[in-house]
Amino acid sequence: MSPRSNGGFLITIFAATMTRTEKPSLEVCLSPALLHLYDTKGAIVVIIDIFRATSTITAALHNGAESVIPVASVSDCIAIGASLPNSLTAGERDGKVAEGLQHGNSPLEYPTSFVSGKTLVLTTTNGTRLLHMVQDAAEIVIGSFLNLSVLCEYLLKQDKNILLGCASWKDKFNLEDTLFAGAVVHRLQHAFEVNCDAARGARHLYNCSGGDHFIEFLKDSSHYRRLSAFGLERDMEYCVTADLHPVVPRLQGDRIVAI
Amino acid sequence: MSPRSNGGFLITIFAATMTRTEKPSLEVCLSPALLHLYDTKGAIVVIIDIFRATSTITAALHNGAESVIPVASVSDCIAIGASLPNSLTAGERDGKVAEGLQHGNSPLEYPTSFVSGKTLVLTTTNGTRLLHMVQDAAEIVIGSFLNLSVLCEYLLKQDKNILLGCASWKDKFNLEDTLFAGAVVHRLQHAFEVNCDAARGARHLYNCSGGDHFIEFLKDSSHYRRLSAFGLERDMEYCVTADLHPVVPRLQGDRIVAI
Repeated sequence: MSPRSNGGFLITIFAATMTRTEKPSLEVCLSPALLHLYDTKGAIVVIIDIFRATSTITAALHNGAESVIPVASVSDCIAIGASLPNSLTAGERDGKVAEGLQHGNSPLEYPTSFVSGKTLVLTTTNGTRLLHMVQDAAEIVIGSFLNLSVLCEYLLKQDKNILLGCASWKDKFNLEDTLFAGAVVHRLQHAFEVNCDAARGARHLYNCSGGDHFIEFLKDSSHYRRLSAFGLERDMEYCVTADLHPVVPRLQGDRIVAI
Repeated sequence: MSPRSNGGFLITIFAATMTRTEKPSLEVCLSPALLHLYDTKGAIVVIIDIFRATSTITAALHNGAESVIPVASVSDCIAIGASLPNSLTAGERDGKVAEGLQHGNSPLEYPTSFVSGKTLVLTTTNGTRLLHMVQDAAEIVIGSFLNLSVLCEYLLKQDKNILLGCASWKDKFNLEDTLFAGAVVHRLQHAFEVNCDAARGARHLYNCSGGDHFIEFLKDSSHYRRLSAFGLERDMEYCVTADLHPVVPRLQGDRIVAI
């Protein structure tokens, strides 16, 4: 081996080492109550609220909504809706359209014919709260089964640390958000450093869910039980169908828009 | 059917219904930072810190230690040890015996010939903290793979709500504590109301761990990586071996003793 080729060999090894150690990190936060344990500075945070906030946001934007404004309270939702032309107010409490609002929290309520060109002012509890808690991220995007593949493709291209943030249910771990996080970890792990037990646990959950039969897997979950008591089985089945709405929603200022 | 036998039939149905709805609850708390979300009043709380506090406590008590006093700080450990005849002080920081203490945090360090009749004053971080956080439980017991079967038998007999409390790692979800919680849920679920996604998730994790090959499953975990850097592989393998030390440790006052 000539000195030159040997040098090239060493550079190759060095480059390979650099590539390996420079992988960005991929972590999962299982509850907003644990968010303070993670460093979100400069990272991309994916907000996950499968049943149903992030599914509804994804569907509405893919169906042509101009933007979605996430707000915490019903009163804010009413006030913002009243001040914005061409807007819809939406949100539920206990499975029913909240008093004073026009529409519900179902992705099925927002077909193109209805939502195109409009601004959806949406109040949810868990998802909106987590979204407002993240302060210093480089970017906040929205994840749901409805945009699984296109979201993963987007994240792979960014070369940034990623935190998958589960909205959970009143701070308690939930299966559906974690299952989705596991689906993302499964797809991205080759390109990221995954030294996070929550990410490993989510991936195990995804692996033992039997692949794509998510709804069967989730029938024994707290949220499925709660929402099926309101007759929302069809909604939930829709929410766990992969890739129906290939769009990546991103927070810009106080609005979520399609990238 | 006579009126009398019909009445008996109804009573039987009623009794069956009562039995079903009166099952105590079984829940899993994945991190001390989530403990406030659970109602521990009157419940049995099982403290789980597989690597390695609760494994060491179980081993020491089964090997004849009179009691274990769990303390939060090294200085408390030294002070209490100095005031107690026939006591041992123990605790590690970063995989080494902490300065000023006599022994480490390995279950293998406490064979009968060494620990019998003595009081072990033990300082740990995550496990001790969770133990001290639980205020109003009917009972606090100690769980580890080393006492899995006898613990489950004990819990089945008590007819109380149960919270399995994972000590986690600096409040972050960990695989080994959750895996153990899943093993307990798997064994107890028939006798309890399990409407808790963390319990379901833990059970799924246990089910996909391949049964008893816990150490293989855990080799890809944050704690295994961290502790194997200190050469503690044998310790960890010991800690995940089921039923080596069939004893149920319980907190009484400030001491943990064998029931």
